[in-house]
Amino acid sequence: MSSAFLTDRYELTMLAASLRDGTASRPSVFELFSRRLSGGRRFGVVAGTGRLLALLRDFRFGEEELRFLRDEAVVDAEALRYLEHYRFTGSIRGYREGELYFPGSPILTVEGSFADAVVLETLALSVLNHDSAVATAASRMSIAAGERPLAEMGSRRAAEQSAVAAARAAYIAGFSATSNLEAGRLWGIPTMGTAAHSWTLLHDSEEEAFRAQVDSLGIDTTLLVDTYDIRRGVETAIRVAGTGLGGVRLDSGDLPIVAAEVREQLDELGATSTKITVTSDLDEYAIAALAASPVDAYGVGTSVVTGSGYPTAGMVYKLVARQDATGSWVAVAKASAEKVSKGGRKAAFRTLANGTAIAETISVADGFEQVDDGAAHPDARALQVVLVDHGEIDGSHEGHAGTLAAREHHLQVREELPVRALALSKSDPAIPTVFIDVD
Amino acid sequence: MSSAFLTDRYELTMLAASLRDGTASRPSVFELFSRRLSGGRRFGVVAGTGRLLALLRDFRFGEEELRFLRDEAVVDAEALRYLEHYRFTGSIRGYREGELYFPGSPILTVEGSFADAVVLETLALSVLNHDSAVATAASRMSIAAGERPLAEMGSRRAAEQSAVAAARAAYIAGFSATSNLEAGRLWGIPTMGTAAHSWTLLHDSEEEAFRAQVDSLGIDTTLLVDTYDIRRGVETAIRVAGTGLGGVRLDSGDLPIVAAEVREQLDELGATSTKITVTSDLDEYAIAALAASPVDAYGVGTSVVTGSGYPTAGMVYKLVARQDATGSWVAVAKASAEKVSKGGRKAAFRTLANGTAIAETISVADGFEQVDDGAAHPDARALQVVLVDHGEIDGSHEGHAGTLAAREHHLQVREELPVRALALSKSDPAIPTVFIDVD
Repeated sequence: MSSAFLTDRYELTMLAASLRDGTASRPSVFELFSRRLSGGRRFGVVAGTGRLLALLRDFRFGEEELRFLRDEAVVDAEALRYLEHYRFTGSIRGYREGELYFPGSPILTVEGSFADAVVLETLALSVLNHDSAVATAASRMSIAAGERPLAEMGSRRAAEQSAVAAARAAYIAGFSATSNLEAGRLWGIPTMGTAAHSWTLLHDSEEEAFRAQVDSLGIDTTLLVDTYDIRRGVETAIRVAGTGLGGVRLDSGDLPIVAAEVREQLDELGATSTKITVTSDLDEYAIAALAASPVDAYGVGTSVVTGSGYPTAGMVYKLVARQDATGSWVAVAKASAEKVSKGGRKAAFRTLANGTAIAETISVADGFEQVDDGAAHPDARALQVVLVDHGEIDGSHEGHAGTLAAREHHLQVREELPVRALALSKSDPAIPTVFIDVD
Repeated sequence: MSSAFLTDRYELTMLAASLRDGTASRPSVFELFSRRLSGGRRFGVVAGTGRLLALLRDFRFGEEELRFLRDEAVVDAEALRYLEHYRFTGSIRGYREGELYFPGSPILTVEGSFADAVVLETLALSVLNHDSAVATAASRMSIAAGERPLAEMGSRRAAEQSAVAAARAAYIAGFSATSNLEAGRLWGIPTMGTAAHSWTLLHDSEEEAFRAQVDSLGIDTTLLVDTYDIRRGVETAIRVAGTGLGGVRLDSGDLPIVAAEVREQLDELGATSTKITVTSDLDEYAIAALAASPVDAYGVGTSVVTGSGYPTAGMVYKLVARQDATGSWVAVAKASAEKVSKGGRKAAFRTLANGTAIAETISVADGFEQVDDGAAHPDARALQVVLVDHGEIDGSHEGHAGTLAAREHHLQVREELPVRALALSKSDPAIPTVFIDVD
């Protein structure tokens, strides 16, 4: 299926106009970045890169797309001919998926002719804004959960395809499993889930429901004990399954109090190894508030798939440099006090002191051909990798392996954060962004 | 492409357990409803029904799905055999797409065997929660915009497939166009868009950019005049295009002030029919604040596709009635003070007085076979229609025609709302929900 129509109309009208006036072929640099971190977050998490590269493979205008553009008179015949043969032949450097970002981080740098690069705006932003918003919220939840397993179960609160992408972004940011089957199949994420309240309500008694579940899924299963009365639910669960029951799930009530009561009851019944999973409207703050409670695992729904109050990451895709009619490079940016952009091609490094991040160092070149190779920053880690080289997509970021690699990268680079970055309250970014002009 | 894996794992584990203990075939009624209106909204807007019905056609477990379920030991062999032949053969009654809803409105009533109906939970909720959240926000914006055209241009702030669904939901709720090409093709929504700041920045001067755009798109186009200095941008625009220029677009600045200045300048230049479109971070409140300003059209991005602060509608899918082992109907509901559910099969009516809605009247039957036909409510409009009849999907809700019909239905039923429903501030629902027990 083509991804080429996941695009705003104005990209194609600009392309058509540029073919007409000859600017279509101007070598151009677009940058995808965020002016600020939404919601006073202390760091952002890049996610979506692997999905974007897979979608880029299918960014081709087929017969159906061309017919619509012709019938609706979106572009002229010259543009139709160009689009018929379009594939992205430029290059993309960018932050690795799972990497942290800060205001002004050049998350993607897209280089190519204006026509080649302008049409990727919507697709790149759609994928990265959504996935990064989810991953940023998820990483905070994962930090709050500590060593306890954390499952994503928000599919019912997100559009059906976003749900799959959200499961992946949450996994990259430290979640351990998802309820979503498609995310399991597509990205190799462990799937989980046993029963809903409807299971208990279907049966003539809670006991019958528990017995049938244990018969089908074994005593290692997790029984949902809050359909009627939690105390009686726990009692019934252990009577049916025995003290070897895998777990009980609580989906309502004042969790710190209820969890303590249920733990005590389970221990009294001898079910000392039966685990407690809680799943009622959790977000990073509720998870943190349960840190001292006898909870063994968390399930998070709405708040993670909606970015915990910030469902989009606020990234933009801007032209930052292009050649002029004489072939000289010109750094460009909109003049606006409220919408700050910095023109020029960037190279990005995370400056470390004793292994701890102290600055996002970004060197800016107005019109050079050479990218800063980092030799001048021996105390810094280079943040950009080549994702697409003259149209050749690096396949290592896609599929099961790419998803797992992004997760491992995230968990590793998160260790570089200063302690103050881990607090949940609203604040400034954990490290400053420092621009260095190298021209 | 199969939609069957857009599903939470627990639905299939319940299905497998129910096949094992014989409850799979129990006639069951599931209801999709919302306990409250998110964000103190005064009404909700149902959207997604047409998309859900189209996805339901493809809800089949193919070889790939069955292989994953077997390899991952999600379900046993008996369940695999059941799923191999699964298609939904039950019935669904529901609110028409575009209809308003209130707390407790039975938006969808899904009837079938437990096994048939339980597996639709995630898909139904994903689609309706997302699309209704967008439509509810969009309807408020459309009311605030009055007769002025309102375009959805938020694709870059939503995951790539949600963006298409969001464009559709916004259109149903009164928006007039979208920037998203796929939404234009799939749903027949008018598309719009001309140029971004990158277009101006690509050129060696703003004048060259405007001239090229007018050459390509004609003088009826809309020029983006705020890349550098707005006053000079407007001057250049009219010099290049003449006083017949279609429009100018403002994407930054203090809009009420800037719009007034630009209108005055355009009029002074003789461009009295040139329209002003504004697009800078608008939501329903900003649109309302511009009501007295000389603005001709609005473009809305982030806020509409993210539900203006409430990106999911909070709908749930609950078992409300089922037969017991003796074949008698039993109304069921979870016992919970915080999560109120009302068991029983429902019929829903909007009670009107002189054409104005005064109550959401819902009759509840514990275990009856007959649905309330409305004869007892002569002053009320029946809200439910048959969407799926014993597996036969009513095709009239899908495609271009279904989308347009939903929009027309919405604009018509919105007229029934009392005036207080149109205010934007947080409040109680505009009309009360009244439950009537008919057994």
